[in-house]
Amino acid sequence: MENNTFVLSEKEIPTHWYNILPDLPEPLPPELHPGTKEPTILPPPLFSAAINDQEFSPENWIEIPDEVRDAYRLWRPTTLYRAYRLEKLLDTPARIYYKYEGSSPPGSHKPNTAVAQAYYGKKQGVKRLATETGAGQWGSSLAFACMLFGLECKVYMVNVSYHQKPYRRIMMETWGAQCIPSPSPDTDFGQKMLAEDPKSPGSLGIAISEAIEDAFKRDDTLYSIGSVANHVLLHQTVIGQEARKQMEMAGVYPDIIVGCVGGGSNFAGMFLPFVKDKIEGTKPDLRIICAEPTSCPTLTKGPYTWDFGDVAGMAPILKMYTLGHGFIPPPVHAGGLRYHGMAPIVCHLYKLGLVEARAVPQLATFEAGVTFARTEGIISAPETNHAIRVTIDEALKCRQSGEAKTILLAHSGHGHFDMAAYDSYLSGKLQDYDYPEAKVKEALASLPEVP
Amino acid sequence: MENNTFVLSEKEIPTHWYNILPDLPEPLPPELHPGTKEPTILPPPLFSAAINDQEFSPENWIEIPDEVRDAYRLWRPTTLYRAYRLEKLLDTPARIYYKYEGSSPPGSHKPNTAVAQAYYGKKQGVKRLATETGAGQWGSSLAFACMLFGLECKVYMVNVSYHQKPYRRIMMETWGAQCIPSPSPDTDFGQKMLAEDPKSPGSLGIAISEAIEDAFKRDDTLYSIGSVANHVLLHQTVIGQEARKQMEMAGVYPDIIVGCVGGGSNFAGMFLPFVKDKIEGTKPDLRIICAEPTSCPTLTKGPYTWDFGDVAGMAPILKMYTLGHGFIPPPVHAGGLRYHGMAPIVCHLYKLGLVEARAVPQLATFEAGVTFARTEGIISAPETNHAIRVTIDEALKCRQSGEAKTILLAHSGHGHFDMAAYDSYLSGKLQDYDYPEAKVKEALASLPEVP
Repeated sequence: MENNTFVLSEKEIPTHWYNILPDLPEPLPPELHPGTKEPTILPPPLFSAAINDQEFSPENWIEIPDEVRDAYRLWRPTTLYRAYRLEKLLDTPARIYYKYEGSSPPGSHKPNTAVAQAYYGKKQGVKRLATETGAGQWGSSLAFACMLFGLECKVYMVNVSYHQKPYRRIMMETWGAQCIPSPSPDTDFGQKMLAEDPKSPGSLGIAISEAIEDAFKRDDTLYSIGSVANHVLLHQTVIGQEARKQMEMAGVYPDIIVGCVGGGSNFAGMFLPFVKDKIEGTKPDLRIICAEPTSCPTLTKGPYTWDFGDVAGMAPILKMYTLGHGFIPPPVHAGGLRYHGMAPIVCHLYKLGLVEARAVPQLATFEAGVTFARTEGIISAPETNHAIRVTIDEALKCRQSGEAKTILLAHSGHGHFDMAAYDSYLSGKLQDYDYPEAKVKEALASLPEVP
Repeated sequence: MENNTFVLSEKEIPTHWYNILPDLPEPLPPELHPGTKEPTILPPPLFSAAINDQEFSPENWIEIPDEVRDAYRLWRPTTLYRAYRLEKLLDTPARIYYKYEGSSPPGSHKPNTAVAQAYYGKKQGVKRLATETGAGQWGSSLAFACMLFGLECKVYMVNVSYHQKPYRRIMMETWGAQCIPSPSPDTDFGQKMLAEDPKSPGSLGIAISEAIEDAFKRDDTLYSIGSVANHVLLHQTVIGQEARKQMEMAGVYPDIIVGCVGGGSNFAGMFLPFVKDKIEGTKPDLRIICAEPTSCPTLTKGPYTWDFGDVAGMAPILKMYTLGHGFIPPPVHAGGLRYHGMAPIVCHLYKLGLVEARAVPQLATFEAGVTFARTEGIISAPETNHAIRVTIDEALKCRQSGEAKTILLAHSGHGHFDMAAYDSYLSGKLQDYDYPEAKVKEALASLPEVP
């Protein structure tokens, strides 16, 4: 039997995060202050000094503190698998590998950055971190990370998700965090929203605003963010660094790397340590494909322009592909992909032609997810199913062409808290959503004016 | 930093299962036919020939078929962790290691035997396996295994659980199995039960009877069982064999091994490859502690006698510690520990003084589980929390005595589908149950008469 799994020892957990910024062929556009519209970095009262330094660091390699590596040992290095059973079912000459981040206690890649942010918060001497969460992946990861470093954690969870998905909330509480439905009476902004609509379903935009207000108002509290920002992508590069080593163990180099993108941090964590080779010209044929939902097709349909990172217009203005910060995507189950914009680093690389993008519809992603579950066993998160769809499509192209391409799939996490979505798919109730062109047009009419 | 994780490569997946039977200091009592009460082995129409042979095999080592090892590679070898963070919190000189079986796709140790049973069924040429499940751990594991070997799978799930815990049912369906509430109209026995009470909540006893009837009636179908039987414990010995190697990597041998016992297969899978040393006298001081619920204290309160393996009296009569096959335990969340009897091998070793037992109350187990989650990160199954409770208690004794004992914990699985139980605990609603002495007395009055 050929090898199915490629495992690293804990000594092989990366010692440094890889920072792509100095390696970019053209410099990344700056971030602009939402009020003054002047170039800025992350507002200092919100983030720790170390995180601030990392956001636009000129260093190629940033040392991972021992305490963070120690935390990583609870689930890293993660395993790289060869998907023999999937290959066989597809009857494809393609070789499919997947790097599985679902073995972390919260079940996804998110803690890779959560533990770093909690560590730097602790080091700066604060007592609490505040954040927002939609379906709960990020909130539970930050709850887990704060627990490891003895910090309090307050999570503002979108009201409708808080009630629809109680298990993620209970997970946060099990790790000792406080999780409340947003809008909440705990902030001025939340009170205002509740006064307007006491039964407000909430939104990620409102929850972000509450978490930022919480952190602004309290000296003992920092804000924490789960994707999009440069430092978040930086922390996620442990994925791609490990994957490189594991692909070497397997004696292969990928022809195609596939991942799903919402804010972009999971997939960037995988491909940034590889895209370097493409920039340097040693692997000109490497293809990197971002999978996104047809209902929220940021890269494939949005313009590349300046827009607010958040819905309320309190976060920095970023140069990115965007559907407009006021755009509210259809309620697909892949909550983590329902973001109007995209990490500026991913957008920049897309603009430069170094990565591609492909939009896939919801039903097709669940079909792919069930195929994956029925071959490889793992029941994947709805977000991940987008990447699995594209992986399967590429493998099927290989069947047609007869090419034995090597495909590397960034598998971001399991779907144990998304079984209701599978039920909906299996019982034929799941639906596709058309691209909401009119809504996007409307949202794009309200972009910030940048001089 | 000392090592936190001990990982094996897939080449180190055991090549043989370890069969304790020839090594026992006294022979294991036989199994008796439920009707004739004569010594028997598993009724042939129910199980495959290979499984039948394994039940009382005289061989010490039974080769694991390549196809089964190939399936094991999807999640084995599992990781052994050193619980540094837990040790630190407890301020104990004890060294705590845990072997984590929750990384299998269904989330527990159960697939170790499920894939073997599915493989032998396939090899025998049947088309389907039928089984029962309570909370769904076993049913989902068999669904997963049947999927891997291209078998149909029918799971009779206790009606009340079917409706209370839909996520496990959806998991089975995602893997292609059919799962229906029991009692069901699909069997004569189920129809009879429904005629008596159309709203019957069902019971494991009823579900077993339906699955057995299903397998009896159809030539293309075998029955499959998730614990108690000798062959199930045999298949689980991959856990202990791997753990031995990993403890050697860590340079230690356990002073104490702890696990939870319902039917006994998970913990026996861990300790059988170690108890050998105690039988042979090379490790006379090794302690092996079975953790069970105070509400269902089979080993600590039950007599050692002959009793039916199932509630309905259709399964073989086994020599075991039992609370009476008619005993229905209080509704603790650790559904997998709500069994009136115990694997005959575990009972035999307990009788011989080779293993110990300790009963722990529900609230204390959740307190231990939350402590574990807040140090090691993993949110454990309610069953596993029983073993964690005993582990913590032993580590605290070490703090008092100053002894640096090495404790090995058999961690049977995660609690991702048990978050409602954590919610109940964290919100102060969870309760303890007294030992139901009167009910046990009543059940023990109806033991089968064995000549």
